[in-house]
Amino acid sequence: MSEIVTAAMVVIGDEILSGRTKDRNIGHLADMLTAVGIDLREVRVVSDDRDAIAEAVNQLRARNTYVFTTGGIGPTHDDITADSIAHAFGVPCGYDQKAFALLEQHYAARGIEFSDARKRMARMPEGAEHIDNPVSIAPGFRIGNVYVMAGVPAIFQAMLDTVVPTLETGTKLVSQTIPSSLPEGTIGGPLGEIQAANPETIIGSYPKYQDGTFWTEIVVRSRSSDAMAMAAAAVEAMLKDLQPKEPVIR
Amino acid sequence: MSEIVTAAMVVIGDEILSGRTKDRNIGHLADMLTAVGIDLREVRVVSDDRDAIAEAVNQLRARNTYVFTTGGIGPTHDDITADSIAHAFGVPCGYDQKAFALLEQHYAARGIEFSDARKRMARMPEGAEHIDNPVSIAPGFRIGNVYVMAGVPAIFQAMLDTVVPTLETGTKLVSQTIPSSLPEGTIGGPLGEIQAANPETIIGSYPKYQDGTFWTEIVVRSRSSDAMAMAAAAVEAMLKDLQPKEPVIR
Repeated sequence: MSEIVTAAMVVIGDEILSGRTKDRNIGHLADMLTAVGIDLREVRVVSDDRDAIAEAVNQLRARNTYVFTTGGIGPTHDDITADSIAHAFGVPCGYDQKAFALLEQHYAARGIEFSDARKRMARMPEGAEHIDNPVSIAPGFRIGNVYVMAGVPAIFQAMLDTVVPTLETGTKLVSQTIPSSLPEGTIGGPLGEIQAANPETIIGSYPKYQDGTFWTEIVVRSRSSDAMAMAAAAVEAMLKDLQPKEPVIR
Repeated sequence: MSEIVTAAMVVIGDEILSGRTKDRNIGHLADMLTAVGIDLREVRVVSDDRDAIAEAVNQLRARNTYVFTTGGIGPTHDDITADSIAHAFGVPCGYDQKAFALLEQHYAARGIEFSDARKRMARMPEGAEHIDNPVSIAPGFRIGNVYVMAGVPAIFQAMLDTVVPTLETGTKLVSQTIPSSLPEGTIGGPLGEIQAANPETIIGSYPKYQDGTFWTEIVVRSRSSDAMAMAAAAVEAMLKDLQPKEPVIR
């Protein structure tokens, strides 16, 4: 098991870029990957455009262990993900026999026409392997290190549930969140010194603002729980030191 | 006014990629740009890493009218956006005199120390212009066609409100949404023909799934309202034709 496993995501869809649909898949993938110790390094949202999809997939698959895509694998003319991925890999795209038979049987059993549009969902790049779709049958697919999944959140989540257990995973990041009422401008200097003294950790500082009140959340992350605990203790000591002192009782 | 104005977005922050924070800025920017006729073409979420930020900004500013970034402009060590943007443009990053004076005065008026950490918020690439921050004073900035704004949604939204009226805008896309209980596999063939016959429109088909029920939303978009109306009428006629016929009453 290598210690660091990285991933990238490509969200495919004009509807996200127009604001019509608000993405719910980025946060879900991020949570799932973090939970198993895979670092999500980059996400791209691209339009329903073959070259845009291929460029994103090719840049990201070259520098990450895995790439996950969502969207564009349905039966309509704007579902061009399979063709675009095939283009990215430089392989033909055609009917996958197993997917074709699966869909043909599925629709026959329900007395629904296996239309040319529905047949489109059996199109895959040559050499792709299925990702099961327990919700609506039409499979996603994997080619190389690229996992191509549906954009509808319920279907994406179901597909991801079958994919995640098959992935190589890294050492999980452990993390500790330390809230503080002190503003970032007060703690920023000493916090930077703590980061410098604790190179095995990643210390993030996140300003929060709600209903006119500001506060700060400090998050210490590390692949080593000892390193995390040591840095978190230093942060807590620093915060205690900076808090306005209680009046002395005489 | 050119007809097509394009934009890209760079969301900067480890906290989005770890799943800890769920992004709310992509959808807001998409909505705002669509409302004024600017096409959001691509979004990238990148980590708190100078080279990752610079690569994304340089790729996107070269091929879009505007680039908008969110995140990483606060006072702590992990706020590296100003330095990364300066690196991307190949210019020095230092204290901006106007921003420095503004912040100095702001903190002096409240009796708060103008710490080194707070001074970091006055750092900008040489040649940058301010974007006002009515919420928490520390300004964002513009350099070239890149607009650098805060990640906290309330501050990002306030900054964007001051930026949007200054932008060149294109011809707005008008759109009509046509819901249908017919599945995509049934309408996919004829819908593709309508798309081919109406090249001035972009016709999207979006499968919806909730509580075990599937339906389809068809969205017709165009910069011409006549072209949109003609394609939408064709879609409606097609759907009516495909709906199961009512039993004949004798």
